[in-house]
Amino acid sequence: MAAPGQNLAVVVHRAGDLRLENRPIPEPGPNVLYFSRRLVNMPSVLKCICVVLARLFGAEVLLRMHSVGICGSDVHYWQHGRIGDFVVKDPMVLGHEASGTVVKVGSGVTHLKPGDRVAIEPGVPRETDEFCKTGRYNLSPTIFFCATPPDDGNLCRYYKHSASYCYKLPDNVTFEEGALIEPLSVGIHACKRAGVTLGSKVFVCGAGPIGLVNVIVAKMMGAASVVVTDLSASRLQKAKEVGADFTIQVKNESPQEVASKVESLLGCMPEITVECTGVQACIQAGIYATRSGGTLVLVGLGPEMVTVPIVNAAVREVDIRGIFRYCNTWPVAIALLASKRINVKPLVTHRFPLEKALEAFEATKRGEGVKVMLKCDPTDHNP
Amino acid sequence: MAAPGQNLAVVVHRAGDLRLENRPIPEPGPNVLYFSRRLVNMPSVLKCICVVLARLFGAEVLLRMHSVGICGSDVHYWQHGRIGDFVVKDPMVLGHEASGTVVKVGSGVTHLKPGDRVAIEPGVPRETDEFCKTGRYNLSPTIFFCATPPDDGNLCRYYKHSASYCYKLPDNVTFEEGALIEPLSVGIHACKRAGVTLGSKVFVCGAGPIGLVNVIVAKMMGAASVVVTDLSASRLQKAKEVGADFTIQVKNESPQEVASKVESLLGCMPEITVECTGVQACIQAGIYATRSGGTLVLVGLGPEMVTVPIVNAAVREVDIRGIFRYCNTWPVAIALLASKRINVKPLVTHRFPLEKALEAFEATKRGEGVKVMLKCDPTDHNP
Amino acid sequence: MAAPGQNLAVVVHRAGDLRLENRPIPEPGPNVLYFSRRLVNMPSVLKCICVVLARLFGAEVLLRMHSVGICGSDVHYWQHGRIGDFVVKDPMVLGHEASGTVVKVGSGVTHLKPGDRVAIEPGVPRETDEFCKTGRYNLSPTIFFCATPPDDGNLCRYYKHSASYCYKLPDNVTFEEGALIEPLSVGIHACKRAGVTLGSKVFVCGAGPIGLVNVIVAKMMGAASVVVTDLSASRLQKAKEVGADFTIQVKNESPQEVASKVESLLGCMPEITVECTGVQACIQAGIYATRSGGTLVLVGLGPEMVTVPIVNAAVREVDIRGIFRYCNTWPVAIALLASKRINVKPLVTHRFPLEKALEAFEATKRGEGVKVMLKCDPTDHNP
Amino acid sequence: MAAPGQNLAVVVHRAGDLRLENRPIPEPGPNVLYFSRRLVNMPSVLKCICVVLARLFGAEVLLRMHSVGICGSDVHYWQHGRIGDFVVKDPMVLGHEASGTVVKVGSGVTHLKPGDRVAIEPGVPRETDEFCKTGRYNLSPTIFFCATPPDDGNLCRYYKHSASYCYKLPDNVTFEEGALIEPLSVGIHACKRAGVTLGSKVFVCGAGPIGLVNVIVAKMMGAASVVVTDLSASRLQKAKEVGADFTIQVKNESPQEVASKVESLLGCMPEITVECTGVQACIQAGIYATRSGGTLVLVGLGPEMVTVPIVNAAVREVDIRGIFRYCNTWPVAIALLASKRINVKPLVTHRFPLEKALEAFEATKRGEGVKVMLKCDPTDHNP
Repeated sequence: MAAPGQNLAVVVHRAGDLRLENRPIPEPGPNVLYFSRRLVNMPSVLKCICVVLARLFGAEVLLRMHSVGICGSDVHYWQHGRIGDFVVKDPMVLGHEASGTVVKVGSGVTHLKPGDRVAIEPGVPRETDEFCKTGRYNLSPTIFFCATPPDDGNLCRYYKHSASYCYKLPDNVTFEEGALIEPLSVGIHACKRAGVTLGSKVFVCGAGPIGLVNVIVAKMMGAASVVVTDLSASRLQKAKEVGADFTIQVKNESPQEVASKVESLLGCMPEITVECTGVQACIQAGIYATRSGGTLVLVGLGPEMVTVPIVNAAVREVDIRGIFRYCNTWPVAIALLASKRINVKPLVTHRFPLEKALEAFEATKRGEGVKVMLKCDPTDHNP
Repeated sequence: MAAPGQNLAVVVHRAGDLRLENRPIPEPGPNVLYFSRRLVNMPSVLKCICVVLARLFGAEVLLRMHSVGICGSDVHYWQHGRIGDFVVKDPMVLGHEASGTVVKVGSGVTHLKPGDRVAIEPGVPRETDEFCKTGRYNLSPTIFFCATPPDDGNLCRYYKHSASYCYKLPDNVTFEEGALIEPLSVGIHACKRAGVTLGSKVFVCGAGPIGLVNVIVAKMMGAASVVVTDLSASRLQKAKEVGADFTIQVKNESPQEVASKVESLLGCMPEITVECTGVQACIQAGIYATRSGGTLVLVGLGPEMVTVPIVNAAVREVDIRGIFRYCNTWPVAIALLASKRINVKPLVTHRFPLEKALEAFEATKRGEGVKVMLKCDPTDHNP
Repeated sequence: MAAPGQNLAVVVHRAGDLRLENRPIPEPGPNVLYFSRRLVNMPSVLKCICVVLARLFGAEVLLRMHSVGICGSDVHYWQHGRIGDFVVKDPMVLGHEASGTVVKVGSGVTHLKPGDRVAIEPGVPRETDEFCKTGRYNLSPTIFFCATPPDDGNLCRYYKHSASYCYKLPDNVTFEEGALIEPLSVGIHACKRAGVTLGSKVFVCGAGPIGLVNVIVAKMMGAASVVVTDLSASRLQKAKEVGADFTIQVKNESPQEVASKVESLLGCMPEITVECTGVQACIQAGIYATRSGGTLVLVGLGPEMVTVPIVNAAVREVDIRGIFRYCNTWPVAIALLASKRINVKPLVTHRFPLEKALEAFEATKRGEGVKVMLKCDPTDHNP
Repeated sequence: MAAPGQNLAVVVHRAGDLRLENRPIPEPGPNVLYFSRRLVNMPSVLKCICVVLARLFGAEVLLRMHSVGICGSDVHYWQHGRIGDFVVKDPMVLGHEASGTVVKVGSGVTHLKPGDRVAIEPGVPRETDEFCKTGRYNLSPTIFFCATPPDDGNLCRYYKHSASYCYKLPDNVTFEEGALIEPLSVGIHACKRAGVTLGSKVFVCGAGPIGLVNVIVAKMMGAASVVVTDLSASRLQKAKEVGADFTIQVKNESPQEVASKVESLLGCMPEITVECTGVQACIQAGIYATRSGGTLVLVGLGPEMVTVPIVNAAVREVDIRGIFRYCNTWPVAIALLASKRINVKPLVTHRFPLEKALEAFEATKRGEGVKVMLKCDPTDHNP
C-alpha cells in the first residue's frame, strides 16, 4: 500500500495549465442504506458506531489505477478550461477512460475484493431521481462524472469509486481493453438508440475514434453493411480495417450528393445514420440519406444552433435522436470482450507511463495515432 | 341506384378554378390475388372469365357518399393548385374526410354488404412493399391517397374504394363522426408516435383543429395534464372546452420564455411536446420545453429549412419525430366513438349540401368555424 | 415530537398472533454517497464526524403515519405466518399501503420538508444492481419491502423511509387517496406490461380489488371496452360502477366457453387479458380468449404448477407476461389523482383508528367491504 | 420454356402416399389494385380488356424452381397426412424452402424480370386484414402458405408466386443459400421476438436444425455467449461448429438441475431462452433458467397442454412468447448472406435431383444429415 502523499495525479488548474502533482490517497466510504439492513435490530449506539466503522470500509472501493486513455475532452479542458457550461474553477484531476485494481473495499461491498481487476464507469448518480428509477441514469442532472468540473477524474495512482460502478474484468480481458470500454460505450449507446439490428444498413458520418467504435458496434449488432464518410483517406482506411463495408471520401459535395452516394453504394437508403461530426452539412446529409421510417442519431456535437431540412425528416418519419454519454453499457462490453468477438486492441497506438503524462497530452494534442494510453501502475506491466 | 352521369363532384382544375361537375359513376373492381384462391382448380379459360366478372364485383366497394369534411389541404389545392411537390395537372376531385353507404360490393368482399355505413381511410397502398409489410403503410411511396394529385378524392355523390380501407360504422356512430375520424387520426398517430401514456404531461403548441384533436387524444390516452399555446384567445378557449388543463396566450415571448411558462404551469417540464404550427420559433420552444429523455413530435409543417437548437435536444436525449398522415387508426377511432368516451361532434360548426360546395369552400377559406361538413346524400338527412 | 415508546404498531409475531404494541420511534439515516459530495475536501476526521451527524439527519425521512390500508397479504401473514418462501420468523410490523406526514428529514434530503404530506412506495432497492440500473428495480432480489419478512411495514404511528421513495401529495389529493396508490400501482404496472393503449379491448378476469383497479386503469389508458368475469354478481356490480363495459357471471363454463362469451360481448377477441385470480381454468380461458398477437398478463397468483394450452398461445403469438409488484408508478398515480380524472375514493368502505386495528383485521378477514383503512394520526382527522 | 404437362411435382395424396407426377404449368396472374392505377382515365371497355390481358402478365411471377429443401413438416404430411388441424384432403404439392429463376412476370411487376434469381417467402396474405396492416402478416388467418393444406408448395419444376414475396438474390448468394433462408427465418423471427441484442447471454434448448439456426442468428445479433443443450453428443458437436460457446449433454436431470448447469456455464442466468424441442420438461427448464425480467421464446411445438411453473415465471417477470413462422425476414437474411457474414452452406449435407425425390424423402425420414436439398432445374448445375 502506498503511503500518504504518493498519489501522483494529472491535474488541470486552468486553461493551459496542466500539472503532475501529488494528492492524498482517498478512503472508500460506506453506503449506509445498504448497511442499515444488517443493523435493524441493534441498539442505537451500536448502530452509530457501526456506521462510523462502515465509513472506513463502506460501499466504495479504493483502486490502484492501471490504464487510463486520454480523451478529446481531457485535452479540451486543458486547452480551454471549459466545455460549454462546464468550467474548471478549481484544480481538477483529468481522466475517465480507466481501469485498475481493487486495493480496499467498503464493508458493504460484496461483489468485489482486493486484487480484483475492474473497469470503471465514470458516471455515478448522486440521487435516485426519476431518471435513475426508469433506467436512464445518464440523464440525471446531478450525476457525478469523472473529469467533468467540479468532479475529479481518475488519471492518478489511487482513486476511489462507487463499487456499483466498478465492473470486474475476466482474466482474458486486459486492463487496456477495460479502459477502452468507455469510448466503446459511446458506440453501444448510440447504436442501441439507433435501433441497429440484424440486417441493418448503416451510414456512419465521420471516421474519428467515435465513428470507428460505431462501425465496430454496428457490425457486432448484426448490421449487414456499413458505409463511412470522412474528409481523410487515412481515417477511412482505419474504418475499413475495423469493418466498414464501404467508404466515401467527401470533399465539397452538397448534403444531397452525399446522401445519393451513400444510397448508391449500399444499394438502398440506410435505415440508420450515426452522425459523429456535429457539422451542419453532415447533419443535413444524415437527414437526406436516411430511409423513410429510419433513425438519425446525433453523436457529434457542433454549434448550438443548426439549420436543418426538418420537413424532409418529419414527413418521412425519420426520427432524430441524440445521445448523452451512455448507460448500462459496461456489462455488455465486458461480455463481448470476454467472448473474444470484438477486437479493440488495435485502437491503442501510444503508451506513456503516468510520469510522462504531460508528454502524452502533447502527443494527443498533435493528433498522433488513435488512442493514447497512460500506464499508472509501475508494479504491473501487463497491457 | 343513380343513372350514369349523375355523379356530382367537386373538382379542382387548376389554382383558383374549382367546379361542381358530373363525373361517371365508377365500378368497384376485383382483387385477383384473393379471388384466385377459389379458382385454383378451374380450367384456364373458366378462370379467365371469372376474373373478368370479378372485375365487376371485385374487392372494391361502391359508396354513396354522405358526409365529407373540408380540410385545409382541399382549400390549399383550390387556392394554389399545389402543395409542395404535389401539383394539380389534371382535374382532380377533392375531399378525403369522408363517410358513406355501401351500394355495391365486389365478389371478393366478405366483411361489407350493401347498406353498410362506413368510414373511409383515404390512403390505400398500391404495392406490398417493405413499408406495408412492416406495418407502416403510410410511408409507402406509391400509396393512393384521396385528393392528393393525381388521385381523386371523394367529395362527390358516388365513389369507389378498396374494401379493406372502408370500416363499418356501428349504429351509434354518426356519418359525421365517421368523417371526423380522418382529422382525429392525425391526433392518434401523433400521440402514439409521441408515446403519450398514463400520467403524461403534454405540451400542445397551436390550438387549430389539429392542435385540438391532439388535446382530445392525449387526454384519452391518460395524459395527466395538457397545456396549449396559441396566439388566439378564442382558439385557446376552444382548447379548454375539449379538455386542455392549461392555456398560454403567446405574443412575442422568446422560445425559452415559452418553455419556462409551460414548465411553470405544469409544475414540471412536459415529457411530450406536440408541435402543430410548423413555425420555427415554436419548434425551438418545443425543444427547450421538453423534459430530458422526452419526445417532440412535429405535426405542423412550415418552411423546408429551420434553425433549431439541435445540441440542446441531443444532449438531453429529446427525440424529434415527425408524422406523415397516419396508419392503423380507423379501428381505434371507431372503437372509441362507439364507446361514447369521446365527443367530436362539437367540432362540426357548418353544414352545406353538396350542391352548395363552392359556397362551403368560400366559408372555409374565410376561416369561419372549426369544421365545415358537406352533405352529399340527399336521401339521408341523419348527421 | 413523540417521546420514545409511543410508537404504537400492528405486529404479527407468528401465524395467528397479531398484537398492538409499542416500538421505538426510528431515526432517519443518511445517504453517504450523496453526502460525500460535500465532504470531498474536508480532512478525514471532520468527515468522519459529519457522517455520524449525517446518520441523524440523513437521506431518510421520519413520517407520522396517517392512513394505511389493509391488504390481503397482511391478513395472510397474520393467518398463516408466511406467503410462499417469505416466513415470519421475527415479529414484523404489518402495512404497506400508506401515507403520512414528514416530521424530520435527513440532511441529504432536498425535495421534502417537515409538514409535507407524502405517499409511500413500499419497495426500496438496497443495491444499485442491474435491475435498478435498467429501470426495473422491482426485480432487485435484495429489495427492502414493507411488511415482507423480515422487513417491517408502516402500520404504526412513526415510520422512517428512504426519502427518494416518498412522494409529496398535492393539496387536492387526500391521505387516503395517497394510501390507495399502492393497490392502484398494481393496476398501472399490469396495464403497462399488457400494453393497454387507445382503443384496446380488454378482458379482466376477476372482479376483486385488483381486478377493479385494472378496470379503472385500463379505461384511463384509453381502452375502448372492458369485459370482466367473476363468480359473484355483487363484485361484477362493483366492476360496472368503476367503468366495466360488460360483465359475465361465470359458473361452470369451460375455459373455451368463457373465451367465446368474451368475444361475443366485445364483438371481437380482446387484444389484452388481465388475469387476476390465479385459478388454472381462468389462465386457460385467458389464453383461449386473447386475440392472436395479443398479451395475457398474469396478476393473480395460484398454485406453483399449472396446466395450460401453451401451443395455442405460442402459435398465435399471444405473449404471457407476469408482474411482480410495480415500479415507477407513484408519480403517474399522483399526477392522475391531482388531475381529478380518476376517482378511487369509493373503494374505501371501512375506517378504524389504529387503536382498533385488531378489530379492523377481523372485519377484513370476514371479507367485509372493499378496502379497510386504518387511521394512524389522532391529530389529523382529514381523509 | 417447358411445354404443358412437363411440370414434375412431388405430391402427397394421403398419409403414406407420396408421388412424383406431372402438373400443368401455371400462369402468373395480375394484381388489379395496382394495375388500376394506370387505368383510371380509360373508358370502361378498354379497362376491362386490359384486365383480361393483365391476368396473363399480372403481379405474379412464374418461376423455374432450382433448389428446394425438405423440411420436417414435409415428411410429416407424407407420413401422417396431417399436422394438427391441417389435413391433406386433396393431393398437395410439398415444399416451401425454395429458390428459383423468374421465367415470366405479370405486367404489374416492376422489381423483377425474367432471368432474375429469387428466394421465395412461402407465406402470402390473401387479405389486407388488421394483422397485415400492423406488420404481423404471419398471423393473418387466411394466409396462403406453401405446402400447408390446401395450398400447394413448390417442390416442382414450375411454380407461380406473388411477386411481392419473391426476393431477388444478389449474384454472390447461391440458390441453396436462398432456399435456406426459410429455416434461417425461423431463427431470425425467434431471436427478434426474444429481443436478443448486444451482449445477450442465450440458452438454446435443442440442437436440431432449428436450434442450430437460432445459435447462428443469436451470435449474429451480438449475443455474447450461447449455451446449447441436447440429448445427442453429435448434435451438440454441430452446435459448437456453428458458434455455440458452451454445450450441455442432458440425460435425466430435473428441469431445475438443467437450469443450474446453464447458469453455472454462463456465469449468470441467461436473459433469453429459446426452446426448440416442445418437450414439457424443457419448457420447465426454460422458465427456471431464464433471468428475472428476461424472455423465454417457444419455438418447438409439443403436446397441446403442458404443465409449467407459471408462478415462477410470473413473479420474476419472465415473458413467455411463442412464434408462428416469421414475417419480414427475407430482406434481412439476404442482406446478411450478401455481406458474407453468415455461413449456412455447411447445413446442406445431401443433394438429390427432383426425379429422385422419393429417395430423398426416405433419406430425410431416416434422419440422415442436416438438410437434404432437391435440385429441380436440370439446366442449371450451380449450387
